[in-house]
Parts: sequence; C-alpha cells; structure tokens
Amino acid sequence: MTIGDGLVAIAAALAVMTGIFSTAGQGYVAAKAVEAVGKNPEAENEIRTMLILGAGIAETAAIYGLLIAFLILFAY
Amino acid sequence: MTIGDGLVAIAAALAVMTGIFSTAGQGYVAAKAVEAVGKNPEAENEIRTMLILGAGIAETAAIYGLLIAFLILFAY
Amino acid sequence: MTIGDGLVAIAAALAVMTGIFSTAGQGYVAAKAVEAVGKNPEAENEIRTMLILGAGIAETAAIYGLLIAFLILFAY
Repeated sequence: MTIGDGLVAIAAALAVMTGIFSTAGQGYVAAKAVEAVGKNPEAENEIRTMLILGAGIAETAAIYGLLIAFLILFAY
Repeated sequence: MTIGDGLVAIAAALAVMTGIFSTAGQGYVAAKAVEAVGKNPEAENEIRTMLILGAGIAETAAIYGLLIAFLILFAY
Repeated sequence: MTIGDGLVAIAAALAVMTGIFSTAGQGYVAAKAVEAVGKNPEAENEIRTMLILGAGIAETAAIYGLLIAFLILFAY
C-alpha cells in the first residue's frame, strides 16, 4: 500500500465516523422511551412508534457517512 | 509494513471508533431501564423490550463503523 | 521496527480505545442500580437482571474495538 492508499482509507474511516454521536443521541431517545414505558406501560405501542420514528430521523447523518465511506473505498 | 500499510491499519481503527459513544449512550439507556424497573417492577417486560429495541437502534452506527473497519482491513 | 510497524501498533491501540467510555457508561448504570435497590429493595432481582442485561448491551462496542485490535495485530 502506498501512503496515498493509506490516506484514502483514513478518509473512508473519517466519513463513517460521521455517525459517532448518533449512538449517543439515539441512546438518549431510547433512555427516554424506557423511562416513559416504565411510567405508563399501557402506552407501550405509542412510545415504541415514536422511538422508531425519532431514532430513524436521527440515523440519517450516520447513513450519509456510511454511503460516502463506501464510495471512497470502492468507487473512488 | 510500509507507512501506507500502517495508515490503512489506523484507518480501520478510526472506523471501529465510530462506536466510541455507543457504550455511553447505551449505558444511559440501561441506567434508565434500571431506574424504571426499580420504580415499577411490574412493567419489567415492557421496559426490557424497550431497552433491547432502543439499544439495538443506538447500535447501528457502531456496526457501520465495524463493517467499514473489516472492509478496510480485508477488502481494500 | 519500521515506521509502518509503529503505525500499525498505534492503530491497534486506537481500536481498543473504542471502549473508552464504557467504564463511564456502565458506571452510570451501576450507580442507578445501587440507587434503585436502595429505594426499592424488594425489586432487587428485577434490578439485578436489568443491570446485567443493560451493561452487557453497553459492552458491545468495546468488544468490537478489541476484536479489530486483535485483527490489526495478528491478522493484518
């Protein structure tokens, strides 16, 4: 591998690291969902729906990073 | 190993580090689950389900990083 | 050792550092478990179960980092 190859690989790694805080943000969403279902177990279905919707929205940037990482590795 | 090989290895390490906050985020989810089950032990099943679902969602970006790390090491 | 070998060793170290916040996250879970069992000792079994499950989930990203560190050192 040349230094250039190594730098391209580092670029792909940096791209996928875009999702680094999505784990923290989604952890916060999930924590609140757990807290909510503990307080009001009858609302489990509504809470689950909101968790999936909210976490899905918070996932988008991580997916952008993954996409660019793939493109850097295999289409660049 | 050449410098290029070393940079590729660093890239794989950075990629897997995408999950660096997932331990903190999931720790927060788990903390809220422990707290919720302490307050309302009868809702244990609903709380456990929400914990597993929420933590699984918060795991995705860490898995993206692991995937890119494998690709960098073995398919690049 | 060449500079490349040194970079590979740094890469393995970075990879295992993925678990850097797991001590903090799991410490928080344990803290909440202690608090919960103090408030509601009758729920000890449910709280202990949730602690073990939650902390296990929060461990995963640290294990990914360990795995990649091993692979960088011995399979790369």
